[in-house]
Amino acid sequence: MKCLILAAGKGSRLQQRGDSKPLIPILGIPLIERVIRAALEAGADEFYVVIGYQGERVCNFLRRLADRLAIPITPLVNDDWDKENGVSVLAARDVLHEPFLLLMADHLFDPNLVRALTTLTLGDGEIALVVDGNTRNPLIDMEDVTRVKVQDGPTKNKEIRSIGKGLADFTGFDTGIFLCCPAIFSALEQSIAKDGDTTLSGAVQALAAEGHVKAIPTDGFWIDVDDPAAFKKAEQALLNRLRDKPNDGPVARYLNRPISVRISRHLVKGNVTPNQISLFSFLCSLLAAGLFALGGYPALLLGGVLAQFASIIDGCDGEVARLKYQSSDFGGWFDAVLDRYADAFLLFGLTWHLLALEVNGWVLFTGFMAIIGSFMLSYTADKYDNLLRDRIIAGAKPGLRMGRDVRVFLIFLGAAANLVLPVLVVIAVVMNLETLRRVRIALNG
Amino acid sequence: MKCLILAAGKGSRLQQRGDSKPLIPILGIPLIERVIRAALEAGADEFYVVIGYQGERVCNFLRRLADRLAIPITPLVNDDWDKENGVSVLAARDVLHEPFLLLMADHLFDPNLVRALTTLTLGDGEIALVVDGNTRNPLIDMEDVTRVKVQDGPTKNKEIRSIGKGLADFTGFDTGIFLCCPAIFSALEQSIAKDGDTTLSGAVQALAAEGHVKAIPTDGFWIDVDDPAAFKKAEQALLNRLRDKPNDGPVARYLNRPISVRISRHLVKGNVTPNQISLFSFLCSLLAAGLFALGGYPALLLGGVLAQFASIIDGCDGEVARLKYQSSDFGGWFDAVLDRYADAFLLFGLTWHLLALEVNGWVLFTGFMAIIGSFMLSYTADKYDNLLRDRIIAGAKPGLRMGRDVRVFLIFLGAAANLVLPVLVVIAVVMNLETLRRVRIALNG
Repeated sequence: MKCLILAAGKGSRLQQRGDSKPLIPILGIPLIERVIRAALEAGADEFYVVIGYQGERVCNFLRRLADRLAIPITPLVNDDWDKENGVSVLAARDVLHEPFLLLMADHLFDPNLVRALTTLTLGDGEIALVVDGNTRNPLIDMEDVTRVKVQDGPTKNKEIRSIGKGLADFTGFDTGIFLCCPAIFSALEQSIAKDGDTTLSGAVQALAAEGHVKAIPTDGFWIDVDDPAAFKKAEQALLNRLRDKPNDGPVARYLNRPISVRISRHLVKGNVTPNQISLFSFLCSLLAAGLFALGGYPALLLGGVLAQFASIIDGCDGEVARLKYQSSDFGGWFDAVLDRYADAFLLFGLTWHLLALEVNGWVLFTGFMAIIGSFMLSYTADKYDNLLRDRIIAGAKPGLRMGRDVRVFLIFLGAAANLVLPVLVVIAVVMNLETLRRVRIALNG
Repeated sequence: MKCLILAAGKGSRLQQRGDSKPLIPILGIPLIERVIRAALEAGADEFYVVIGYQGERVCNFLRRLADRLAIPITPLVNDDWDKENGVSVLAARDVLHEPFLLLMADHLFDPNLVRALTTLTLGDGEIALVVDGNTRNPLIDMEDVTRVKVQDGPTKNKEIRSIGKGLADFTGFDTGIFLCCPAIFSALEQSIAKDGDTTLSGAVQALAAEGHVKAIPTDGFWIDVDDPAAFKKAEQALLNRLRDKPNDGPVARYLNRPISVRISRHLVKGNVTPNQISLFSFLCSLLAAGLFALGGYPALLLGGVLAQFASIIDGCDGEVARLKYQSSDFGGWFDAVLDRYADAFLLFGLTWHLLALEVNGWVLFTGFMAIIGSFMLSYTADKYDNLLRDRIIAGAKPGLRMGRDVRVFLIFLGAAANLVLPVLVVIAVVMNLETLRRVRIALNG
């Protein structure tokens, strides 16, 4: 599906962050790249970008992006970029002869909002607009947003009746996400010729008056990044989206993640790679294990704090990868391998700490069982999750989310409270029992 | 695809093994079940079985089998089962009106031989026969096999010219695996009416004379289980097929597997399940670890032997599962989980053995590194194998096959030679280096 993106305007209200608005990086990635990547994820595969202000810089960036992502991106020049955005749409009149997506370079959105459009069939001369029905959406600048009024059409489908910034009677907001057909071009030409109205909304209003604008309702994420306040909100929204990972255990969710996203927010601005973050976290764990083995309470306490710090940093690699579109199977695997080594060294450091105080077979055995139990839990997790997914969906309990977050937090607590043996016992018992529970479920299934 | 199986004959030459030939178990599974399962694997999904001698017993078995496998199996009765096998084919005349597979209940084969037929398109009135071109096939009883002569047909396709037991001039053998069309029924009727010839070969010869029998060449596995000698050969062939597992390491291939298949040969005759075998092997390993920890050379030696025995038995669960069609993801997973525990306990037992002699930090550290290295190798194996499969196919070296077989064999050698520390050092170094090598390859990829 073809996709037209408007990126010609000056964006004066964000000048403080960069002279070319589409190229302003938000959490490390330029706005226009985020829009193109989200559209790509939703199914668009051929891009046309209308450039204007600072056109050459945007054009150069797009050329490199097209190479990196191996997708076709065609720049279209709008010399009248200082007029309203309808003129930009007209720049595509000669190249788009079938239905196409129409997006704004400064509107970020969840790919699902676009996905809803890609399967839509338009009637003759019809266009469609994704409408945000949440009139209390805190991400919206009420002064500036384009409002729409949606009503039931003749066949009970939702239709847009009117659209405009000043609308007093409205039911939702224009997300700037359209599915258009070439009818939009003639509507724009008429709107300009008749009323001198160069806005896209003007042409949409004309089509709406004929009942030709479908409304696709949404309550998903989107934001118009128009001024510094919206920019901050958008950053925060992108960071918040990192925090709802279904696999996160309780410690990750309520303690580690809130801190790690704050750190990731700064890390994305540099050139640090996710793998480097994984390695740094691993080295911190190794150092913590060494401090445990060193003996004495101060070293033990310091090691505990360092281990917990490493566990928090361990969240940043995935966050940075997601924010900068650097996620990969290999990255996740590398992180998992380092985590297993880190866990083993931490538990071995604690065991050593106790054995240095007093050589005792039970301590040795407990340390061994804690190490093997932690390992087994990770070893069984993948296969258990895959094999039992259907059964869990069918209603079985997913069991303890006894992941690395909880394990390291227990180690931290044990070190801080100087209760090393009890913590090793707890880890040994809980980890092995949970492994046995998984085996039992798998066998009975 | 429909599949007709001839199971009416008496099979007098195998009477010593059971009064109903199709029901004679070979390595725990009745002949007819093996034939049906192999055809099912090759793509057949609707079965018709011609029964005769001991028809009721066979019929009862088929009813239960149809339930177990959730497939339709329709019995067809041939009261003249004491005549030749062509009469049995005629029992299906009224139910089969399209192309169908024709198989013999006493011919075992590799599913690939049948798969070659399921994609074949027959000309009008044509049938096809899989022909074994290996005239020195040691599994063949030269006195009894039906011989065929294959020649190039008019369009350069292979055609059967003549077929029969006595053929002096021949190029291959009748495997008893046919793709037929209803033309076979009229050919049989004519052959019986004209010459009184009730053999299937007679009808095939008549069709061959008209150039209507395609030859599909093979050098794959098949065997006619007709007498005690062939039965023994078939057993041995099925067992040998267990031995070419591409994932087997050197110790598994040349030491463990040859012994374990001999054990499995007996295990399949009982009601032992693969999971029970896994558990038994695990308990042996646990006992071996206990003997290591006990101290003293005799216990060490005994533990080493027991560990190696457990490693051999550990091959039987998979072998029995494959021989008795009991393989499952869960079974493999259960075995893998127990193996990880077993490895850890064996290495911990050895570490304990050394620490009991002399408390020494380096020994403790070496034992820890051996345990973690063994774990990491298993932990990384799955993902490494999956992630790197493409690259390995593309020419990269698959790396050390340093699996469990080698690890336990090293433990056995170390215990037998009373060189426990050197073996722990070797395991610690090799396992961790190989893990690091995998990580390095994955990151550079």
